[in-house]
Amino acid sequence: MLKVGILGGGQLGRMLLQAAANYEVETHVMENDEACPAAHLCRYFIKGDIRNYEDVYRFGKSLDALTIEIENVNIDALEQLEAEGIMIFPKPAVLRIIKNKALQKKFYSDHKIPTPEYAILESVNEIEKWQHLLPAVQKLAEGGYDGRGVQSIPDLAAARQGFEGQSVLERKVKIKKEIAVIIAVDRNGKTVIYPPVEMVFNKDLNLLDYQLCPADIPQQVLWKVEAISLSLVRHFNSPGIFAVELFVDEKDEVSVNETAPRVHNSGHHTIEAHYSSQFDMLWRVILGHPLGNTKYILPSVMINIVGSEGYSGTPVYNGLEETLAIDNAFVHLYGKLQTKPGRKMGHVTILSQEKQDLTHKANKVRQSLQVVSRNNG
Amino acid sequence: MLKVGILGGGQLGRMLLQAAANYEVETHVMENDEACPAAHLCRYFIKGDIRNYEDVYRFGKSLDALTIEIENVNIDALEQLEAEGIMIFPKPAVLRIIKNKALQKKFYSDHKIPTPEYAILESVNEIEKWQHLLPAVQKLAEGGYDGRGVQSIPDLAAARQGFEGQSVLERKVKIKKEIAVIIAVDRNGKTVIYPPVEMVFNKDLNLLDYQLCPADIPQQVLWKVEAISLSLVRHFNSPGIFAVELFVDEKDEVSVNETAPRVHNSGHHTIEAHYSSQFDMLWRVILGHPLGNTKYILPSVMINIVGSEGYSGTPVYNGLEETLAIDNAFVHLYGKLQTKPGRKMGHVTILSQEKQDLTHKANKVRQSLQVVSRNNG
Repeated sequence: MLKVGILGGGQLGRMLLQAAANYEVETHVMENDEACPAAHLCRYFIKGDIRNYEDVYRFGKSLDALTIEIENVNIDALEQLEAEGIMIFPKPAVLRIIKNKALQKKFYSDHKIPTPEYAILESVNEIEKWQHLLPAVQKLAEGGYDGRGVQSIPDLAAARQGFEGQSVLERKVKIKKEIAVIIAVDRNGKTVIYPPVEMVFNKDLNLLDYQLCPADIPQQVLWKVEAISLSLVRHFNSPGIFAVELFVDEKDEVSVNETAPRVHNSGHHTIEAHYSSQFDMLWRVILGHPLGNTKYILPSVMINIVGSEGYSGTPVYNGLEETLAIDNAFVHLYGKLQTKPGRKMGHVTILSQEKQDLTHKANKVRQSLQVVSRNNG
Repeated sequence: MLKVGILGGGQLGRMLLQAAANYEVETHVMENDEACPAAHLCRYFIKGDIRNYEDVYRFGKSLDALTIEIENVNIDALEQLEAEGIMIFPKPAVLRIIKNKALQKKFYSDHKIPTPEYAILESVNEIEKWQHLLPAVQKLAEGGYDGRGVQSIPDLAAARQGFEGQSVLERKVKIKKEIAVIIAVDRNGKTVIYPPVEMVFNKDLNLLDYQLCPADIPQQVLWKVEAISLSLVRHFNSPGIFAVELFVDEKDEVSVNETAPRVHNSGHHTIEAHYSSQFDMLWRVILGHPLGNTKYILPSVMINIVGSEGYSGTPVYNGLEETLAIDNAFVHLYGKLQTKPGRKMGHVTILSQEKQDLTHKANKVRQSLQVVSRNNG
């Protein structure tokens, strides 16, 4: 039986383990927190720091394969393990490119993958030199996560509050749509692609409001999205699951925003809305099985359940009954012991034939479902 | 968070735990074998004998609710726990009726649920008195399981090999179809019913060959199946999941063969082929959530993967790749450490619009997928 380790024990690990139980695989998870969402669903849980060389190396050396649920892992250890014959999904070389946003951008340019115009800055003082890119978005090359390490630089005045350290300064695209695509690459390089999804943002909070599948885009745009994403992922030359986030601008031009070489938030809906989920698919890749069917069963909407403002502590899910009473609404709670404002605590997927019905129901969920806490608020 | 215990740690427990991870629930499992299929997927595993009063009572008394994945549990302990306010799914009174095939038959008669003509025997010698029922099937009232404790009594000569002890002697029905129906009953008594499935048997081995959903039966028969099953389950007056097995005879008369008050082999296909699976549904019942959608996404076939004759030991799954290469084929391996002839080691569900396509693919799986062993054979 293949021994497979997952670096990271969050909700993505949890959902991977739910899918793993269909297959012949011995699951191992490493994470610092013994109460993390994935801890009790694996065969062996090892407490450790996934960013620490020794921890990752010791964890991996007795396993057959390793995968990740977050990019922020010790890549040196993974490279050593790969050299010793352990299969890594994705390859550490890909992680190295993607983990650093400057390298990631350069990779797109090197392989003629369209991406918004940018400059790589070694220091905040260089913004002036690149002022023709303003208004821009500045992204720290490393260490950014979940909204941290990314900020808007509308003009030179704002540049003074720019991030120090290596960063990417990227011209703001007039975005018509934000799209994400999940692609699976098997151990022989064969690819399958899920239908693109469309991210609908709350403009006030810059938070993902909900996500629709399939994306409502013209055929020509769909072709561009698929062609660009597949071309990009093939250049990585690595088995695994890849989530490509793209912009569609006002002229229907398509460019790549960023890529995650792993199961991803934008693929949560595939659990119920598609024949083979992204989690099922990653196991097929790792275990060397034939790839599954990426088609959707019905159109879907996915809504993240995040901790409400003003509440921290043991979570209480208000409005769960209203949500579960919606026809074909599926709730996933991640089992996190603490809620805090904006923390991803779960998600809801709703299936329906009609887009209007989906957005109506998504709004209903957004209004009724709140994560508060027992302890304060 | 509700603390819920499952008595039994087999494949049904395993699939219940996969579904549990979507909800806010603290899972506990009791089973004698620490390497059982469900052991590593629960939050707390307790080694114990589910047939032992003390073990079951101790396990249950600190929990909020209990359910079962096998009927052969200590009912006295469950009754005591129920009296102390712990919710039991199903109610122990139902388990008491169903666990004893004589009581189960009498329950059908008492509530005018059609069932094949029968007699309750206290000793094998009474068969002669009931010879007008021959050819018959004799079923031990208690202790039978998975084909054991059931035998054919074609004539009086065969009666000499009849079982000793309390049993049911049941007139053989000229069966046209064997049907199974899953029904969920929530804590308020609300019911939902899954479409009936049809069991196709291998006549030589008397083994389930495969199972089709929906059953291919005329509308009139469907109505009878649904009406009888719902009426029966309502008489149990208990929340939970119920699997009702029925016969359709040559005159299209419908009668109940037996009932299981739990998630069941005949509902495995609901994981991929239906919007809400029987496992998801049981959690909705236990947690007091609204019930899910029982409709099918596509027609399906389910094939049990059983240990091949002549092989015992560490299982090896031959032909897995051929099966997983079939469009919309989903494999579930139960993670059992030992195979033996006829042991349920997993199952395959295949979805397709066309019945002919389903039976064709089911036969392909039956031919290609074999569970052998490393150690002998």
